[in-house]
Amino acid sequence: MNIPKGTLIIIGGAVDKGSFTEQNFDPDVEKNLNFFEKGILNRIIRESCKKQDSRIEVITTASKIPKKVGSEYVRAFNYLGAKNVDMLNIDKREQANDDEYLERLANADTVMFTGGDQLRLTTFLGGTKFHDLLLQKYYHENFVIAGTSAGAAAASDSMIYQGSSSEALLKGEVKITSGLGLIQDVIIDTHFVQRGRIGRLFQAVVSNPKVLGIGLGEDTGLVIKENKSMEVVGSGLVILVDGRFIKHTNITQVPLGSPISIENLVVHVLSIHDVYHLDTHTIIMHEHVSVDDEY
Amino acid sequence: MNIPKGTLIIIGGAVDKGSFTEQNFDPDVEKNLNFFEKGILNRIIRESCKKQDSRIEVITTASKIPKKVGSEYVRAFNYLGAKNVDMLNIDKREQANDDEYLERLANADTVMFTGGDQLRLTTFLGGTKFHDLLLQKYYHENFVIAGTSAGAAAASDSMIYQGSSSEALLKGEVKITSGLGLIQDVIIDTHFVQRGRIGRLFQAVVSNPKVLGIGLGEDTGLVIKENKSMEVVGSGLVILVDGRFIKHTNITQVPLGSPISIENLVVHVLSIHDVYHLDTHTIIMHEHVSVDDEY
Repeated sequence: MNIPKGTLIIIGGAVDKGSFTEQNFDPDVEKNLNFFEKGILNRIIRESCKKQDSRIEVITTASKIPKKVGSEYVRAFNYLGAKNVDMLNIDKREQANDDEYLERLANADTVMFTGGDQLRLTTFLGGTKFHDLLLQKYYHENFVIAGTSAGAAAASDSMIYQGSSSEALLKGEVKITSGLGLIQDVIIDTHFVQRGRIGRLFQAVVSNPKVLGIGLGEDTGLVIKENKSMEVVGSGLVILVDGRFIKHTNITQVPLGSPISIENLVVHVLSIHDVYHLDTHTIIMHEHVSVDDEY
Repeated sequence: MNIPKGTLIIIGGAVDKGSFTEQNFDPDVEKNLNFFEKGILNRIIRESCKKQDSRIEVITTASKIPKKVGSEYVRAFNYLGAKNVDMLNIDKREQANDDEYLERLANADTVMFTGGDQLRLTTFLGGTKFHDLLLQKYYHENFVIAGTSAGAAAASDSMIYQGSSSEALLKGEVKITSGLGLIQDVIIDTHFVQRGRIGRLFQAVVSNPKVLGIGLGEDTGLVIKENKSMEVVGSGLVILVDGRFIKHTNITQVPLGSPISIENLVVHVLSIHDVYHLDTHTIIMHEHVSVDDEY
């Protein structure tokens, strides 16, 4: 696999339908000083090749309320100084092969996939010219792909698209399909700490321990370079589940619906500035941070 | 520390206020074939020295609705053939030094601590004659102490009594105090899978990795003999967190309220019939179980 020239930023989401749909969101965005992902969105702009002048497309395909979710991101990016921002809503496969949309993607420096349902992303985009161009730009250009919630979950080769938290360690309860394939050997879950999804990730990892489980907390993300180094950004936690040292499990023996036993999963809990190297499986832990740190 | 002659059975709880308060609970208990803890309650009777003739006291101290919660247990034990069952509600410290209650405890073969608030258990019972007698019977008699939810959480030396799930890995967010001290070197959390509490347990473990974190799923428990062997019972999962191999953490460096990083926690996921040996830290994993197995 080639080394991508682009940067991948995956974020754990905040609220169900995407992002700035906070209950107390003030229409005057300057009053929402602590609003969701402000730090991370800033980082996305900083990573973009032309900084605030970058052409940013907010891809709302995952959401069933694309205008609502998308316009909140446009407003937020604008507020942070990026003015060259638009919404791009593909919700049919034919649009994902349409020259108009392909040209917009070709001209983008950065794309931001909103939250919603990751199955919409793979169903509408998987195997289209849009998908091909996305991969091509990621591997060969100084291009930023950011995704939150569904937009993050879809980034890897395998994608969790459903599975209740409480039943997550019953065999077969976690539903996995093929993702957009931007990054290999990881599987990503979002809203992680908040929704108690560790069981989902455990099951995804135990069934193939080559795959590192990544659980992203809300308002928390990873900035991934060369599909190797992963730096934590945001205010919460990233939980990594490494199954390579599993000693024993009964998953191959029990029938569907039965509880799974697993001996010896290795778990890391990372927060802002910590860096994990996917190729060497090493952690550089940042010393003494404060939640007020700029990130 | 001496080896207890008694048996400790800790259960992860089911619903907020204790146990049989299911929404669809049928007053005709025979119709509730799958009802909560039927398997585990049966096991409690089987572990009790006089089986169905055992004198069982349901201790409702943790609950603010003791009669409601307690009578459901009495009804369930009766249904399972144990007829010598009563409710014992201490909700003042003076009662816990009262001869009437002490005599009832002295005459019991088995006690069952219901759910509720574990802080009520330690506040009302801690350091009383009732507490002393409980420990004495546990260490020197063929006595069964069972506890569900709050009743399980209070069993260990240190007890988690509060801490939100979503914020559980911010330093100081998890509130810990002294438990009833029936078992050492473990810390117990309940409703574990269902309420996404892994972060609470991580924080409890990282601040003293000698302590094994035990996360009990709902309708799931551990039958503990000699404070060493722990056998999983019930329909769900037990998650163990072993911090002895932690390589690095920032918990001593960051201020209260900051996210905590932890490298290399070892996690085990156990289900019915699996056995963990606390003294040797070894697992005997049961092969091929079915959810229909008798337990």
